[in-house]
Amino acid sequence: MNPFLESLESEIALKWKDLLKKSELSTLVMSGEFDIRLYGLYLLETYQYTLHNSRNQALVGAKLDPLADIQYLKFCLKHAYEEAGHELMALHDLKALGSVTIPTPIPQPMPATEVLIAYLYRISETGNLKARLGYSLWAEDAYVHIAPLLGAVQKKLSLKPSQMTFLGEHSNIDADHIKDVRDMIKRVAKTDDDRDAIRRVSLTSLELTGSMLDNMASEYRLLENGKSLKYEFLNTLL
Amino acid sequence: MNPFLESLESEIALKWKDLLKKSELSTLVMSGEFDIRLYGLYLLETYQYTLHNSRNQALVGAKLDPLADIQYLKFCLKHAYEEAGHELMALHDLKALGSVTIPTPIPQPMPATEVLIAYLYRISETGNLKARLGYSLWAEDAYVHIAPLLGAVQKKLSLKPSQMTFLGEHSNIDADHIKDVRDMIKRVAKTDDDRDAIRRVSLTSLELTGSMLDNMASEYRLLENGKSLKYEFLNTLL
Amino acid sequence: MNPFLESLESEIALKWKDLLKKSELSTLVMSGEFDIRLYGLYLLETYQYTLHNSRNQALVGAKLDPLADIQYLKFCLKHAYEEAGHELMALHDLKALGSVTIPTPIPQPMPATEVLIAYLYRISETGNLKARLGYSLWAEDAYVHIAPLLGAVQKKLSLKPSQMTFLGEHSNIDADHIKDVRDMIKRVAKTDDDRDAIRRVSLTSLELTGSMLDNMASEYRLLENGKSLKYEFLNTLL
Amino acid sequence: MNPFLESLESEIALKWKDLLKKSELSTLVMSGEFDIRLYGLYLLETYQYTLHNSRNQALVGAKLDPLADIQYLKFCLKHAYEEAGHELMALHDLKALGSVTIPTPIPQPMPATEVLIAYLYRISETGNLKARLGYSLWAEDAYVHIAPLLGAVQKKLSLKPSQMTFLGEHSNIDADHIKDVRDMIKRVAKTDDDRDAIRRVSLTSLELTGSMLDNMASEYRLLENGKSLKYEFLNTLL
Repeated sequence: MNPFLESLESEIALKWKDLLKKSELSTLVMSGEFDIRLYGLYLLETYQYTLHNSRNQALVGAKLDPLADIQYLKFCLKHAYEEAGHELMALHDLKALGSVTIPTPIPQPMPATEVLIAYLYRISETGNLKARLGYSLWAEDAYVHIAPLLGAVQKKLSLKPSQMTFLGEHSNIDADHIKDVRDMIKRVAKTDDDRDAIRRVSLTSLELTGSMLDNMASEYRLLENGKSLKYEFLNTLL
Repeated sequence: MNPFLESLESEIALKWKDLLKKSELSTLVMSGEFDIRLYGLYLLETYQYTLHNSRNQALVGAKLDPLADIQYLKFCLKHAYEEAGHELMALHDLKALGSVTIPTPIPQPMPATEVLIAYLYRISETGNLKARLGYSLWAEDAYVHIAPLLGAVQKKLSLKPSQMTFLGEHSNIDADHIKDVRDMIKRVAKTDDDRDAIRRVSLTSLELTGSMLDNMASEYRLLENGKSLKYEFLNTLL
Repeated sequence: MNPFLESLESEIALKWKDLLKKSELSTLVMSGEFDIRLYGLYLLETYQYTLHNSRNQALVGAKLDPLADIQYLKFCLKHAYEEAGHELMALHDLKALGSVTIPTPIPQPMPATEVLIAYLYRISETGNLKARLGYSLWAEDAYVHIAPLLGAVQKKLSLKPSQMTFLGEHSNIDADHIKDVRDMIKRVAKTDDDRDAIRRVSLTSLELTGSMLDNMASEYRLLENGKSLKYEFLNTLL
Repeated sequence: MNPFLESLESEIALKWKDLLKKSELSTLVMSGEFDIRLYGLYLLETYQYTLHNSRNQALVGAKLDPLADIQYLKFCLKHAYEEAGHELMALHDLKALGSVTIPTPIPQPMPATEVLIAYLYRISETGNLKARLGYSLWAEDAYVHIAPLLGAVQKKLSLKPSQMTFLGEHSNIDADHIKDVRDMIKRVAKTDDDRDAIRRVSLTSLELTGSMLDNMASEYRLLENGKSLKYEFLNTLL
């Protein structure tokens, strides 16, 4: 382990803890006072941002300087390839929940999801392009942090594996990916600027993900209270 | 007045009220327990995002469809031109506060400022490009909402006009610009998609601005407690 | 006059001479064996690339480094603004030629026109962004070089001023613009890299414009021989 | 075989024939009056544009619409990955030619190479994004067309396989890639607009490649006549 990575991963773990403690979604899930529509909202937003992950990862490759480390270029393109289409698993899981007609076109992402997407595109084409590794570092290893939450959801809703393919698949491929990400950070994070950029993107993108989770909770409250036109198509799941 | 604009401007006013009520910066300012370094942080972040406003406004013009309304293209380019260099007023004001050595390069924007910047670039080059009008709609008219806050700061710190050129200038040019913005929205917001996009960007960018203001307050707390390396150069202002 | 500018403008003048000497369009026009459809093709392609000039000029502004010369930023945005909509004059002139129904959507640009457009976008967002000044340097001063050609066309076709607003307007505003461009080059072309980039873009964009003129001639030959489906709508002008 | 593909590949074959007939490079090679510096120039420019092929192929993936065919997204990212770093083989071959010190930074691409690069980026991020398949269609199958030329060069210069790794490798992987490209065109070229876009990019990019080959020949003439400062570092190969 290298000191930068060790220190950053500690910071990430702390931030996860802090974030889940303050999280509206966490509170909602732990209270047990939710139904399947909450998981529906989660899958919908997961579809929304996952769809862009392969694209913004590819963008890093497209924008890399001609003299950039060729192994980093290959890493970006390989990961972009491997992530392509994963969003369809989230959509599949949503359809597997029961009788639901997803509107065409699919509703716009929630504001906090749009902000996360915008941020990831920005850091994938501007400034120090090693920075996106900071996002991968926690995103490929998120499962352990959200496992308790997911466990509670799964139990409460009696979800079957066929309704959780997105999460299942990702917890499996994470083990490989996170190793690649750590190795690549060790390889390319050479200067203070590199390390600052990676750290900044890591913590900011995690913060924005926390906001996205909260946005799901607040939209669920609206839906529960009959005040959400946008997501009322989920009511047929009840 | 047209109904869409009227309704959106009411929503914006409500959101401002709500945002300032919950705002850490507001609380800090109204408590009177702050010093000139807080205004320094405000000017620094204002420099950071303002610098991009001219650029992302120009980007809308660069990305507009060949068949886009020529008056909207001209609007984008004219406003981009008129905003160019305004960030230098914020920097000027910072220097006018007293003895301060701004580091070279200028410190990175705060995370919440980076997120706002990222969001504005994203909506300026993707999707419905009329949407950025939603940002201009409140940004060109922000003065009235933050006037009480600014008044409190000015009074407490006994700021002179030469230390407030950014705010002074903007409150003057706002009157013209906001009229242009309203006229352009009336002209181009024709479909539900146009109106949704404008509304979404309006409310989301205002929300992100609120987070930026809060980030200033939290950085001030760190600085006050001697825990901010990044901004300790502002201590010479005391 | 500064030596770099003087030398580059000599090179441009030589290249114009060389280019017109070898030009198929030149040969065609000077032979007198053409009709109004050739001017129609010229106006159509002029519409196509001019439409992008305002946009790629704005793009330079949008992409300029935060620390870029503020006067250069303002120059880019002002010129982008002033060029916006000029393409409509070319379209107006085409309609003023007589009875012609322009297809909807307007036909794709000719290959050589697409290449010129692609090149101008590329150099407006990548590499040394002062380089686009090299294009403006000859483009704002093109009238003197193509005047003999235009004179021959005008005479042969008995064109009225109302059918030549694009060219008329441009020869008028050129006088101002070219001075701005020269002043800006003097101001910002400081390093060898700056001068190389400006020179390279100047000569390459002029070469591509020569190819575009030749493409007009070759398409005219096809049309004349009844082999152009794409432009046969111009036959009603005869 | 499908009719569109069959017809386009015939057009491409004809264009290759026509292009090589008129080509200055072809004339030069067939005359036998060239030396190793010509192959050096070829490798240098091959390095230059190949370096961008992986990047602009990835860009297509990054820019694809959320609802785009997932198989096309995967194709783009897989091919981008497989092309990454191939430019280094061209550089390797150049170094293997003998005693040569490549300047740092590597000289700018020739104008015609820059134009090709610019065009490929433009069509990879704008308009119908299936269009880049038109470039792959001939580029992955170029070997057969340039084989006679290459044979003449190899014979005249007594090149060893270790000095031709770029060409060797590509003739091997082409067989697989071209099949993928044809399959993908069959899959995604559904509308007239798709087919027009693919065809246009195919023929225009081939034309620009022809210009690049000619530019190599003209630079060789300058070098031969002692008039090329830029490439005189190749003289040590003699």
